[in-house]
Amino acid sequence: MSEVGSRSAGRREPPRTGSVPTLLVLDAEPPPRLGRLTGRARIVHTDAAHLAERLPGADALLVWDFTSTAVREAWPGAGPRPRWVHTASAGVDHLLCPELAASGTVVTNARGIFDQPIAEYVAALVLAVAKDLPRTLEQQRERVWRHRESRRVAGTRACVVGSGPIGRAIVRLLKALGVTTALVGRVPRTGVYGPADLDRLVSRADWVIAAAPLTEATYRMFGAHVFGVMQPSAFFVNVGRGDLVDEDALARALTRRWIAGAALDVFAAEPLPPDSPLWDLPGLVVSPHMSGDTVGWRDELGRQFVELYERWAAGRPLVNVVDKKRGYVPGH
Amino acid sequence: MSEVGSRSAGRREPPRTGSVPTLLVLDAEPPPRLGRLTGRARIVHTDAAHLAERLPGADALLVWDFTSTAVREAWPGAGPRPRWVHTASAGVDHLLCPELAASGTVVTNARGIFDQPIAEYVAALVLAVAKDLPRTLEQQRERVWRHRESRRVAGTRACVVGSGPIGRAIVRLLKALGVTTALVGRVPRTGVYGPADLDRLVSRADWVIAAAPLTEATYRMFGAHVFGVMQPSAFFVNVGRGDLVDEDALARALTRRWIAGAALDVFAAEPLPPDSPLWDLPGLVVSPHMSGDTVGWRDELGRQFVELYERWAAGRPLVNVVDKKRGYVPGH
Repeated sequence: MSEVGSRSAGRREPPRTGSVPTLLVLDAEPPPRLGRLTGRARIVHTDAAHLAERLPGADALLVWDFTSTAVREAWPGAGPRPRWVHTASAGVDHLLCPELAASGTVVTNARGIFDQPIAEYVAALVLAVAKDLPRTLEQQRERVWRHRESRRVAGTRACVVGSGPIGRAIVRLLKALGVTTALVGRVPRTGVYGPADLDRLVSRADWVIAAAPLTEATYRMFGAHVFGVMQPSAFFVNVGRGDLVDEDALARALTRRWIAGAALDVFAAEPLPPDSPLWDLPGLVVSPHMSGDTVGWRDELGRQFVELYERWAAGRPLVNVVDKKRGYVPGH
Repeated sequence: MSEVGSRSAGRREPPRTGSVPTLLVLDAEPPPRLGRLTGRARIVHTDAAHLAERLPGADALLVWDFTSTAVREAWPGAGPRPRWVHTASAGVDHLLCPELAASGTVVTNARGIFDQPIAEYVAALVLAVAKDLPRTLEQQRERVWRHRESRRVAGTRACVVGSGPIGRAIVRLLKALGVTTALVGRVPRTGVYGPADLDRLVSRADWVIAAAPLTEATYRMFGAHVFGVMQPSAFFVNVGRGDLVDEDALARALTRRWIAGAALDVFAAEPLPPDSPLWDLPGLVVSPHMSGDTVGWRDELGRQFVELYERWAAGRPLVNVVDKKRGYVPGH
């Protein structure tokens, strides 16, 4: 495993011919598709407790259990370590740490797998809320027939925060429903507004959608200020990361009717504890971090990793390479 | 009111110059926008109980209370009667009777008002079911965090029955979501399958959507046969009329898991009685005939009627003219 140390010291040779790289897999249950790598990888499974001791002997690390923050805690500050880390998730906030960011280790993510599923999930929430479906289900339980007027979705306005592939997929699908959309990213560019426009766009939006990566710049960016700027009729959706939101501020905004409602698929603490006040806040839909996970998603994640592994093992350039300073794969 | 009798005898003169036609309005609460007709119509409001005695004196009838079947019951077999009947609904099943069909009276409907709202409503149901939203809301009430895989909507197949403007709007919106759609009408034509293809299309569909007018040909067309042909994973939606569906057969199909679920917005008896078994059938979403009724709909219906009235009073051709034999406004 001498490559490991040499790579971190700046040399970039591919794995030695004839050698088989050691692939460490942090998982709770084995990923699909890894059988494809038989003979081309020495696969070592690990749990969080044994990660630190196994990292120095690994050439590559697959973070399959993307709910774990063990990598951030176990990453070695110096010495041998994996040359490549792949996470089976779009977000990389759970693994980036200063030592990993400073190292020569390449980090890749599952960019592309979750875009369409999450866009559909957001569209489902927007339509269900406009059509008052949660109340319909509630009145059905009570056998109450109460005709109500619902809202058109076409012609409403959405502000989507996060200009990566997920945010852009959300914009495309909402546009297909006739929604007027504005996309906000870190830096203004063609088709993307910058942070300076956020207040103005949020104040006009019927739907404010959080789909940004969790970074220092986005940590709790949805707080009292944003909820205060939103219209009282507007609805907030978070499909990014829990810590994009100041949950206490959201609870106050809902309780005081600053905004009409919200849907959170992600939370600062997951699973959401049974005693969390978020479970029964007025107008809040709580879902268990499922927006991107459609039938077959694990298989797609496995297939994507195998493709990346084949590139890596052949010394070809990787795709989905994370900018470790920014905390995401830089966009187009 | 001599025009009334003469019109039914075949003569077609417009209202006499200087005369003001009598507009009878069957309503529970007054329609908006009729103030626009001040001086151009003598407006007489009526309830169902007084409809029969007032019909002979009316030149035109606006059926604003489209839940009422009073017209069918009160329509005179002979003698003076309105030359024009407009209903503030897409369906005309509640007013057509043999005497009205045989008469020279023109019937118009609210074609166009409900297309987009109902299409959005169907899209909301399809997305909410694919994303398992009803179960999410249920588990939220129980403070249960249970991650599940949900389904992609793009790539699924829908069979939409009813090739009028509502069915076509549903097809357009589902297509925008990436759904493969088949539209079924009474007569096959470009872009529309005929009844002979129904079984084949239904058997392959993930979503079967009823959006047909209620006629002799469509009465209870969704019964044991169709539910038996559907896939066990498929979902049925009715946004047409309650009597398109054999509700007992649907109840059996759901109880026996012939199909995965259904959503009914319309029922044979409305409001659905509190003791109906439909309220808590497994997998059935019950909503109170609201799919087309978005904020501002009454105003739009009023505006549409005023426009039609102006055409009629000026002797110009009406639009949205119902084929009284077929029971709907013929095709596009």
